[in-house]
Amino acid sequence: MDPQASNNLTHHEQDTLSFERIVFFSDAVFAIAITLLVIEIKVPVIVHHEDRLFPTVEELRQHGPFELVRLIPKFIGYVLSFLVIGQYWINHHRNFGYIKRSDPGLLWRNLFLLMSIAFIPFTTGLYSEYYFWNMAMMIYAANIFVAGILQWRMWQYATKNHRLVDSSLNRHFIEKISLSHIGTPVAFLLAFVAGWLNIPFALSFVWIIIPIMVRFARRRYEQRVANEQMEVGQPI
Amino acid sequence: MDPQASNNLTHHEQDTLSFERIVFFSDAVFAIAITLLVIEIKVPVIVHHEDRLFPTVEELRQHGPFELVRLIPKFIGYVLSFLVIGQYWINHHRNFGYIKRSDPGLLWRNLFLLMSIAFIPFTTGLYSEYYFWNMAMMIYAANIFVAGILQWRMWQYATKNHRLVDSSLNRHFIEKISLSHIGTPVAFLLAFVAGWLNIPFALSFVWIIIPIMVRFARRRYEQRVANEQMEVGQPI
Amino acid sequence: MDPQASNNLTHHEQDTLSFERIVFFSDAVFAIAITLLVIEIKVPVIVHHEDRLFPTVEELRQHGPFELVRLIPKFIGYVLSFLVIGQYWINHHRNFGYIKRSDPGLLWRNLFLLMSIAFIPFTTGLYSEYYFWNMAMMIYAANIFVAGILQWRMWQYATKNHRLVDSSLNRHFIEKISLSHIGTPVAFLLAFVAGWLNIPFALSFVWIIIPIMVRFARRRYEQRVANEQMEVGQPI
Amino acid sequence: MDPQASNNLTHHEQDTLSFERIVFFSDAVFAIAITLLVIEIKVPVIVHHEDRLFPTVEELRQHGPFELVRLIPKFIGYVLSFLVIGQYWINHHRNFGYIKRSDPGLLWRNLFLLMSIAFIPFTTGLYSEYYFWNMAMMIYAANIFVAGILQWRMWQYATKNHRLVDSSLNRHFIEKISLSHIGTPVAFLLAFVAGWLNIPFALSFVWIIIPIMVRFARRRYEQRVANEQMEVGQPI
Repeated sequence: MDPQASNNLTHHEQDTLSFERIVFFSDAVFAIAITLLVIEIKVPVIVHHEDRLFPTVEELRQHGPFELVRLIPKFIGYVLSFLVIGQYWINHHRNFGYIKRSDPGLLWRNLFLLMSIAFIPFTTGLYSEYYFWNMAMMIYAANIFVAGILQWRMWQYATKNHRLVDSSLNRHFIEKISLSHIGTPVAFLLAFVAGWLNIPFALSFVWIIIPIMVRFARRRYEQRVANEQMEVGQPI
Repeated sequence: MDPQASNNLTHHEQDTLSFERIVFFSDAVFAIAITLLVIEIKVPVIVHHEDRLFPTVEELRQHGPFELVRLIPKFIGYVLSFLVIGQYWINHHRNFGYIKRSDPGLLWRNLFLLMSIAFIPFTTGLYSEYYFWNMAMMIYAANIFVAGILQWRMWQYATKNHRLVDSSLNRHFIEKISLSHIGTPVAFLLAFVAGWLNIPFALSFVWIIIPIMVRFARRRYEQRVANEQMEVGQPI
Repeated sequence: MDPQASNNLTHHEQDTLSFERIVFFSDAVFAIAITLLVIEIKVPVIVHHEDRLFPTVEELRQHGPFELVRLIPKFIGYVLSFLVIGQYWINHHRNFGYIKRSDPGLLWRNLFLLMSIAFIPFTTGLYSEYYFWNMAMMIYAANIFVAGILQWRMWQYATKNHRLVDSSLNRHFIEKISLSHIGTPVAFLLAFVAGWLNIPFALSFVWIIIPIMVRFARRRYEQRVANEQMEVGQPI
Repeated sequence: MDPQASNNLTHHEQDTLSFERIVFFSDAVFAIAITLLVIEIKVPVIVHHEDRLFPTVEELRQHGPFELVRLIPKFIGYVLSFLVIGQYWINHHRNFGYIKRSDPGLLWRNLFLLMSIAFIPFTTGLYSEYYFWNMAMMIYAANIFVAGILQWRMWQYATKNHRLVDSSLNRHFIEKISLSHIGTPVAFLLAFVAGWLNIPFALSFVWIIIPIMVRFARRRYEQRVANEQMEVGQPI
C-alpha cells in the first residue's frame, strides 16, 4: 500500500537478481572453459594403408599404443589446467561469498578475469602440443599468471574501504584471503622465469608447488573456520 | 485453505520461475558464445620435415615465433568480440533488472537477439582470418550492429507504455537507457560504412570509440545511481 | 523446535532444489545445443597459390564472395534450427511452468528429449552440407519430428490423471497445450514424407508452416491469458 | 538491530549461495559434457570427383548411405555415453538433495568427479572410432568406471558420521543409496575385464545390464518414496 516501501523492496530484489546473474554468468564461463579443455585432445588418426577404410586390428595393436602414448602430454595438460581453473573457480566462489554488491568496476574487472580464463583452453592446447618448446610453456604460464593476478586485483578492488563487502568483515581476514590468491600465480611466474632461463621441464615443478599450496589453503581454511566460530561464539 | 488465494500464489511463483528461466537461458547463451570465441584460435601447425613426427626444438625456435605472430589478428578479434559480447551481456543484465514480466513478444525478440549473439564467434573467425579483406570486416561489423539494434528494439518493446516494466519507472530514465544502447552499434555501423568506402583498417577506430563509450556509460551509471538515491531519498 | 515440522520443511526445500535442477540442467542443454549450431559453419578456406601464406586481396575479392555464397545453405540451416530449438525451449519453459513435481519417469523422459535436442547440431550440419540430397533432409526432419513427439509425450505423461501438475489445472486447458505441441513435428513429418516422394526442396515449405504456427501459438497464448484472467476473476 | 543476529543471517545466506553454486557449476559441467558428445560425430565427407565442388546427387545416392552406415558406431557411442552421463547426473542430483553443507574436501572430490565426467566425450570418440579395438573400449570403460567410483566415494565422504548430511538421515537409507552407485561402474568393470580377455563385443552386454539396473533403481526409488511416506506419516 505504501508505494515507497514496495519500491524499496523492488530495488532490493532487483539487486539480488542482478548480483546472482554476475555470479551465474561467471560460473557458466568457468564451467564451459573447464569442459572445453577436452576438445584439445583429439582422437588420434592411426596409420593404415590408404586403400582400406579402416586400420586392421593388427595395425591398431601395432601402432595404436604408441599413438596413445603420444597423447600423454595432452592428458597432463588437461589435468593441470582442470586443477588450475578449478582452483580459480573455488577462489571466485569464496570471494563472491563475501562480496555483497556489484558496481560497474567489478563487472568489468570480472569480465577481464573471465577473458583470461576462457583463453586457457587455447594456451593449454599450445603448451601440450609443443611441451618441449619453452616459448609455448611460457605463454601458458603467463596466461595462468595473468588470470591469477586479475582475480587478486578484483578482490582488492572489492574490499578496499569495504567498497563491496560487509562493513563488518574483519580487515585482518580480508588480507588473509588476499594473500591466498598469490600462491598459484607465483608458482607459474617462477615457471615462466625458469622457461626464460631455458631450464628444462620448467613447468613440472608446479606439480610440487600445487599440492603444497592446496594443503596450505586447506589448513588456512580450517583455521579460518575455527577463527570464525570463535568470533561468532564471542559477543562482539 | 482458500483455493483462490493459493492459486494466486502459485501463479505468481510460476511467473517468477518462468521469468528467471528466460534470464537464465539468455545468460547461458551469452556465456557459451563468449567462451566459444577461443575455439576460432587454432593451435598452429609448425612446419617440420614429414619424416619425423615432431618438429625439432630448432625448427620450433626458427618457425614458431612467426606462426604465433600470424595469430595476432585472432587475438585481437578474440579481445574485441569478448568486450562486445560482454558489453551486450551487461546491457541485457541491466535491462532485465527493470523488466518485470515476460510475454511471447519478448520471448521471441530475445530469441532473435540470442541468434545474432551466437553468430558472433563465426563472424569473428571470418574477420580475424581475412582481416585485410573489407568484406569480411563488413560482415563482422554488420553482425554486431544487428545484435545491438535488436537489443535496443527489445528494450523499446518492453518499455512502450510500460508494457513489461514497473509502471513507476521514470519515463526520462527509460529514454536514457534507450540511448545508451546505440553507442556500440553506431560505432560498428561507421566501421561498416568505412569498409564500404575501402578506408584501410576501418575497424581499428572502434578501439578509440569503445573506451570513450565505456567511460561515458560508467559516468552515466554513476550519475544514474546518484539520481536514484536522490529519488529514493525524497518522498515521492 | 518441533523436529517433525523442520523435517517437513527440509523435505519441501529439497524437492524445490531438485526440481529446479532438472529445469536448470535442461536449460543448459538447450542453450548449449542452440549455441553449438554455429560451430557447423566453418570459416571458408579461400583458394590461393600455395607458395604464399595468405591469399592476396585480389584473390579474396575474386573468390571470396563465391565462397560466402556457398555458405548460404549453412546460414539457412542455422536460422531454421535456432528457431526450432528455440520453439522447443519455449514449450519446455511453458510446460515446466505447470509441472510442479518430478518423478523418475519424468527425469528419464526429459533425458531422452534432451538427447534428441543435443543431436540437432549434427543433423543440421548434415542437412546444410548436402541440402540437395533428400536423405540428409529426411534425417534432419526425422530428428526434429522425434524431439517434438518426445516433448508431447512428456507433457502427456506429466498431466495424465494430474500426475505431476496441480490438481486444480483445467483438463480442457491441458488438452489445448497438448495440441499445441503437434504443430512443429507434423510440419517436419510432412517434409519427411515429401522427401521420401522425391519432391524437390521439400523442407522449404516448413518456412511457410512455421510462421503460421507461431502466429497461431501466439493467438492461442493471448486467448489463454484472457481465459485465465477470466477464470481468476470469477470465483471458482 | 542486533548486529549478532544479522551477522548470523548473513552467514547462513552466504552458505546457501555457496552451496547452490557448487550444484550449479556441476550441473553446467554435466550439461556441457553431455552436449559435447555430439561434436565427436562429424558430418561425413562423401567422395566426389575433385574437379567439382560438390558431389552430384548420383554420387550422394551411391556413396552416401554407406557413409551414414559407417557412422552407426558413433551413434551407439553417443546414446550410451548420453545415458551414462545422464545416469551419473541423476545420481549427483539425488545425492546433493541430501547433502546440506559443503567443505573443501567435498569441493575437491566434486572437482575430480567433474574431471572424469568432462573426459567422457574424448573416450567416447576414441571408442566409437576404433570400436573393434579392445584397448579403445577398455579406456572408455575405465573412464566410466573411475567416474562412478569417484561419485560413490564422494557420497561416502559426505555421509561418514553424517559429516555433510542431516543428522536425522537414516543410516540404513544412506547405505541403500551408497549401494545404488555401484551398478554402472561394476557393469563397465566387467566390460573392461572382458576386453582384457579379448572377448569380442565385450561392451555390448552393458546394454543388457543397464536396463536391468535402471528398472532396479526405479523400483528402489519407488520403494524409498513409499518408505519415506511411512516414516513421515509416523510420528518419530
